[in-house]
Amino acid sequence: MSYILTTQCADDVGLIAKITGLCHEHNLNITRNNEFVDKDAKRFFMRTELTGEPQSDFLSQLRALLPEGAQLALHDDTKTKVVLLATKEAHCLGSVLLKQFEQALNIEVLAVIANYPDLEPLAKGFDVPFHVVSHVGLSRSEHDQQVGDLIQSYNPDIIGLAKYMRILSPEFVGRFENKIINIHHSFLPAFIGAKPYHQAFERGVKIIGATAHFVNNELDEGPIILQDVTSVTHANTAEMMAKMGKDVEKTVFSKALQLASEHKLFINGNKTVVFS
Amino acid sequence: MSYILTTQCADDVGLIAKITGLCHEHNLNITRNNEFVDKDAKRFFMRTELTGEPQSDFLSQLRALLPEGAQLALHDDTKTKVVLLATKEAHCLGSVLLKQFEQALNIEVLAVIANYPDLEPLAKGFDVPFHVVSHVGLSRSEHDQQVGDLIQSYNPDIIGLAKYMRILSPEFVGRFENKIINIHHSFLPAFIGAKPYHQAFERGVKIIGATAHFVNNELDEGPIILQDVTSVTHANTAEMMAKMGKDVEKTVFSKALQLASEHKLFINGNKTVVFS
Amino acid sequence: MSYILTTQCADDVGLIAKITGLCHEHNLNITRNNEFVDKDAKRFFMRTELTGEPQSDFLSQLRALLPEGAQLALHDDTKTKVVLLATKEAHCLGSVLLKQFEQALNIEVLAVIANYPDLEPLAKGFDVPFHVVSHVGLSRSEHDQQVGDLIQSYNPDIIGLAKYMRILSPEFVGRFENKIINIHHSFLPAFIGAKPYHQAFERGVKIIGATAHFVNNELDEGPIILQDVTSVTHANTAEMMAKMGKDVEKTVFSKALQLASEHKLFINGNKTVVFS
Amino acid sequence: MSYILTTQCADDVGLIAKITGLCHEHNLNITRNNEFVDKDAKRFFMRTELTGEPQSDFLSQLRALLPEGAQLALHDDTKTKVVLLATKEAHCLGSVLLKQFEQALNIEVLAVIANYPDLEPLAKGFDVPFHVVSHVGLSRSEHDQQVGDLIQSYNPDIIGLAKYMRILSPEFVGRFENKIINIHHSFLPAFIGAKPYHQAFERGVKIIGATAHFVNNELDEGPIILQDVTSVTHANTAEMMAKMGKDVEKTVFSKALQLASEHKLFINGNKTVVFS
Repeated sequence: MSYILTTQCADDVGLIAKITGLCHEHNLNITRNNEFVDKDAKRFFMRTELTGEPQSDFLSQLRALLPEGAQLALHDDTKTKVVLLATKEAHCLGSVLLKQFEQALNIEVLAVIANYPDLEPLAKGFDVPFHVVSHVGLSRSEHDQQVGDLIQSYNPDIIGLAKYMRILSPEFVGRFENKIINIHHSFLPAFIGAKPYHQAFERGVKIIGATAHFVNNELDEGPIILQDVTSVTHANTAEMMAKMGKDVEKTVFSKALQLASEHKLFINGNKTVVFS
Repeated sequence: MSYILTTQCADDVGLIAKITGLCHEHNLNITRNNEFVDKDAKRFFMRTELTGEPQSDFLSQLRALLPEGAQLALHDDTKTKVVLLATKEAHCLGSVLLKQFEQALNIEVLAVIANYPDLEPLAKGFDVPFHVVSHVGLSRSEHDQQVGDLIQSYNPDIIGLAKYMRILSPEFVGRFENKIINIHHSFLPAFIGAKPYHQAFERGVKIIGATAHFVNNELDEGPIILQDVTSVTHANTAEMMAKMGKDVEKTVFSKALQLASEHKLFINGNKTVVFS
Repeated sequence: MSYILTTQCADDVGLIAKITGLCHEHNLNITRNNEFVDKDAKRFFMRTELTGEPQSDFLSQLRALLPEGAQLALHDDTKTKVVLLATKEAHCLGSVLLKQFEQALNIEVLAVIANYPDLEPLAKGFDVPFHVVSHVGLSRSEHDQQVGDLIQSYNPDIIGLAKYMRILSPEFVGRFENKIINIHHSFLPAFIGAKPYHQAFERGVKIIGATAHFVNNELDEGPIILQDVTSVTHANTAEMMAKMGKDVEKTVFSKALQLASEHKLFINGNKTVVFS
Repeated sequence: MSYILTTQCADDVGLIAKITGLCHEHNLNITRNNEFVDKDAKRFFMRTELTGEPQSDFLSQLRALLPEGAQLALHDDTKTKVVLLATKEAHCLGSVLLKQFEQALNIEVLAVIANYPDLEPLAKGFDVPFHVVSHVGLSRSEHDQQVGDLIQSYNPDIIGLAKYMRILSPEFVGRFENKIINIHHSFLPAFIGAKPYHQAFERGVKIIGATAHFVNNELDEGPIILQDVTSVTHANTAEMMAKMGKDVEKTVFSKALQLASEHKLFINGNKTVVFS
């Protein structure tokens, strides 16, 4: 069997030796390993691909070797469970559903939840449950409560905001801490907030981009996972930029989910560690 | 109304002046113009975006001003009609169908024809007619005849080979001359033929790519429309490269169809002129 | 002989027809043409490569055909005269001097002026005059006056700020209006001001960049000419980003000067039109 | 002190544990580690950044833990010694000399050897010894002998072919086995041999590239180190492609030397392992 061991803890001397030594004792063969030490934060991150069959006490033995408070997980190849939130735009949602259909992601999309019904045919076409939770007539808090309860009923590992054009309440973000991945249609930190392509057009930039990030309680300010860009010219209107940007958004968004599903993604304060 | 005028003819002095002068006489306002002269081949290419209402004799007057044999067309915003051929892989087909759903392409996919039934759910999910024409028990010529007749019944402007894993007979290619766009999963002319990702892995390249090209009767040798690449490392197996390459393939393929639909694509001998 | 005609004026119907028509009358053959209409600003921009020998009244005839206030210029292949300002960093300065040595730019670097002597060996190695104008003991205004006088004695077409780490006074900027090209070491408008790589590191971005722009009197706010980016990871410190960014900076800076020297660059309010 | 430990050997279980365990015993702190197992070739590669002070028997103890024939090296921060060979083109040579001047590479260029005198001013400008060894009147074997003797007198770690437009004799290649890095002006394996930009132009490709590779005795066939590309269009002549390609060539070449100087480069049969 193949496993992925993820380790995050306070930095210390000899951590790699201790972890790989224990793997060796348990006859676990390391086929790939990545590690990173954040020297400022004194944090250690490691992702280890293993083959073999770990005994039931492997993780507890490992924990005993590591500094207190270590975050350890041993993942088999179970698919990462994802609920996607959307509004009216199809490209990010469709891109993930298509990749799931292609079996290109180790992801199972449990459901799509949207505040408008427009994307129902797309979800249905891929045989994925689709729920409308309209925000009309509800306070933000009430709407977030309803959406959150529905998400929770699916118990996903990750919540993907596939161009979900709603500001999330702090309660909602807190309820799914470190689980929400958003795609923002600019090269953050440029053009935070609304209508980034119009802002980019007004400023006359020559490159536009998209940013996948974890969501925290500051608008467009969570830990950045992935960014990509594309060139534009003076001849591109804001509308053309928006259209061109969609290709970047969908690629960045689905790659961010892929990184999560491959356990390559660690949150490190307001940043991420990405073993790509 | 908006129009796109495409002109291709032998080069001559004053062609831009003649064409734009006639537009001006007809009160057609030029909003965008691209031109190219192939000095070796002595060929002139021009694409002109116009607003206004051309009189019925505009094209005949224009033809009279240009060298004999000029290829002229005036396109309104009618969608380009496309038939897609596929086999079993979903990514290129799905990418175009998704973009059509998003209304991101000025394209109407009339039908999908495949030699296996695997992709029927994908086409059906997007409400596009799907036909299986199995090659089993047929000669290449018979199969191509059946597929060709079916295509012809739809009378498309463009035939897109969305990872159609069949060698086409010269008769088929001749029947749809200059209308067939293929996606090849390598950075041509490197790795012509079968299993390009395995060839790339064996050679130890650090970048892989994909190529959209018009099909003629030499394998992977038609005029190149568009290419794109992605980086790989020593850690990527041929299978990983194939997976990574799919994202490039789908992007290049759908952009090539988009260029065709926007009348930005001209064939110039064994090359293309692309006004992107 | 080859010429480049640049035209900028209020938009009007038939401008392309008028300009290309006059070229045709004068037996000037158009070998390449680019035009752009800014529909919001109602401005017309055109760059025309010509072969032939224009008569002396060509420009005055052309002016008579165009809206009042048209900016017209007919450039032969004379090299663009550049003075470069620098401080201590070698990469942008050296990159331009090397390209001049390679004869890869249609540019003549008349002189290098720096506020420190460190780069003298580099300039001398390429046989380019080097002047130190130290800012020590001078007010900003006095220093800018001395540097400006020295620049003026060379009468350059373009002043390139090759990592000149000084804030310019409004008087200096006004004195060389629309002639100063700066390279900023971030992907503007992200990370305006000091230490952009440290800002980028703190924010945890996954892509860094550089921006060449015309200088006006708002810090890092002039019309953007060109931008480029490179990927970074969690493993890159601010210092590593600064080192990686230098390759982007030098490329973007020398390409911006190249665009200027090829007369492909137009200022359009707070933006640029770039016919690349 | 900082060290870089490079290990290459037959694959075995527990190698990472053994190596990192010994480092831990010797109080060597691992600040960065990369490893790769080629499963087909059953080869193990590892690069380890260490701080601390290894005892004199560290390497011999390490060797005793590893499979027979292991290639081990412990590098301090001594600069990699390089001799550059050139002909007439300045861009690759100049780029490395400039980076050395900037102190951007951990490289010391000991000398430049060319078969023409054209680049002497460039080398002299950077205070680097320049030797002309003309091939006129010599057989290939005689010329290679003279050049080789001169190189050997400098005893470099790496020989960089900075657009050295000579075919090397098998004797020369054998004399400096695994030490010669070439820059080829195409995206290999496309356009092997002479005039790759002309080949690219004839084929009508939309992307051109450059390849840095170790030299062996098959033309343009050695292990590939690094590749990069740039986009071209129908409007680019072969000459324009050659000019555009130079920027890619110089970047790829100097980055390949940088990888060598940072001990990130391993030869693995006809491929490389690059820990970038």
